[in-house]
Amino acid sequence: MKARLDCYPCLYYQALRTARMITQDEKKILDILNNVSRLLPQLSFNVTPPEIGKKMYDLIEQMTEVSDPYQTIKQECTQRALRMYPDIKKRIKDSPNQLEMAVRAAVAGNVIDFGVHAEFDFDKDLETVFTQEFAINHLPEFSEAVKQARRLMYIGDNAGETVFDRILIEEMNKPIVFVVREKPIINDAVYQDAVEAGLDKVAEIISSGSDAPGTILSLCSDEFMNAYNNADLIISKGQGNYEALSEENRPIFFLLKAKCPVIAADIGVPQGSIIMLLP
Amino acid sequence: MKARLDCYPCLYYQALRTARMITQDEKKILDILNNVSRLLPQLSFNVTPPEIGKKMYDLIEQMTEVSDPYQTIKQECTQRALRMYPDIKKRIKDSPNQLEMAVRAAVAGNVIDFGVHAEFDFDKDLETVFTQEFAINHLPEFSEAVKQARRLMYIGDNAGETVFDRILIEEMNKPIVFVVREKPIINDAVYQDAVEAGLDKVAEIISSGSDAPGTILSLCSDEFMNAYNNADLIISKGQGNYEALSEENRPIFFLLKAKCPVIAADIGVPQGSIIMLLP
Repeated sequence: MKARLDCYPCLYYQALRTARMITQDEKKILDILNNVSRLLPQLSFNVTPPEIGKKMYDLIEQMTEVSDPYQTIKQECTQRALRMYPDIKKRIKDSPNQLEMAVRAAVAGNVIDFGVHAEFDFDKDLETVFTQEFAINHLPEFSEAVKQARRLMYIGDNAGETVFDRILIEEMNKPIVFVVREKPIINDAVYQDAVEAGLDKVAEIISSGSDAPGTILSLCSDEFMNAYNNADLIISKGQGNYEALSEENRPIFFLLKAKCPVIAADIGVPQGSIIMLLP
Repeated sequence: MKARLDCYPCLYYQALRTARMITQDEKKILDILNNVSRLLPQLSFNVTPPEIGKKMYDLIEQMTEVSDPYQTIKQECTQRALRMYPDIKKRIKDSPNQLEMAVRAAVAGNVIDFGVHAEFDFDKDLETVFTQEFAINHLPEFSEAVKQARRLMYIGDNAGETVFDRILIEEMNKPIVFVVREKPIINDAVYQDAVEAGLDKVAEIISSGSDAPGTILSLCSDEFMNAYNNADLIISKGQGNYEALSEENRPIFFLLKAKCPVIAADIGVPQGSIIMLLP
């Protein structure tokens, strides 16, 4: 999915939010915003949003020498999600459709997002996802595909959400590769975040080879590309991965909450919808 | 009131919205956003928001040669407000406190705004203002000041809102100067908008001499400054005029709905509050 004009102001909101996580120095923050202003006109907008986002976050990292401003928040989200883990497991066990309930848990975890539209209410938004209708519901196709699949790949999104991904992976009960970002970007999960969520116990964790906030294939490692090309079922989690992969011709199920109006419009659903989509 | 860092991304939202009012050509809109990006790092942020806004809107006008993108919207807002005029006049007549009800009408008209946080529901938002509590309520002081005042000035804000300003001016029933912008800027009222609202029948209409989206005194005409300095009661309507005049040492009553979080924080009230403030 290509970036839209609406992404333009949103990038400044993200820059401001991230700069404020790093420093209280208003002069420094203004300096960051001014440098983002100098950067954006040099970039093509005929690319996916994570390609632009990566360049902006790279600039902020270069200017501040802070490579992981969301580290503490990521750990807190993971710990908070781990505390919810037993209840959600029980809820799935008691459900008549355990796979659907596990998919709901996974998409509920996608409310944890500090990238776009970053205001969320952890408990309330999670609970909403457990009961709201899917705007696009390819769960029957997914259920069948899981049964058939032999080489599964699960492309993760945010830290904390990883705990909910683990729940779905446990429910699928298949050998699976879980993909994390190579280096920190916003609150996206890296290797350590996946381990803290316990994913090392249920999946092989590999890196995409890139720190873009979405799986931009041209930036990914050979190891990742090999696994990606050989997978017979891919679960792509969250908005950034949708933006990067929505036009790829692979058996990809996109599982996400469409928080961003641009992404919701691209999918053709109302903002706030939950989606299990095999294009 | 000085600009804050939060104004930075908001300026891009305003630029995008205005560019879309002028053209459907996405390449042209991106060009406008890129030029705003090149402009902002050259500006000082140690000024009021209307000073920055004026430079941005000037740039958009230069690039597009469209001097009044909101002309049709302004006329529609005025016509819509005029249709409500008889009902509101009756409501005031039936009220035990007619001046308060007229002040409420005037601040209700301030929901009409295409500058910041431009999404509003005309009927619903207007009705809310008629019943909500004032977060700052200097109505007793205002009532007394109106009785004493001999040279009144009313600095207008948006087109359409002007009809509601007229209602308050009729209720005050004093000789009064109504101030409009010199040239179109966003949906701010210019001379013609004031006339269409019927203000020429109840006030002397003068221009501030500037097209900034707020009354920046250094840009105002001698005619305006003369009237301003001689007024013994000034009503400043809306956010842009508050931003420009909040630190002035004159008998100014600020009447507005604090739609913008930065302005609400500056005043010290929750976002969405209505205010009648004599600092």
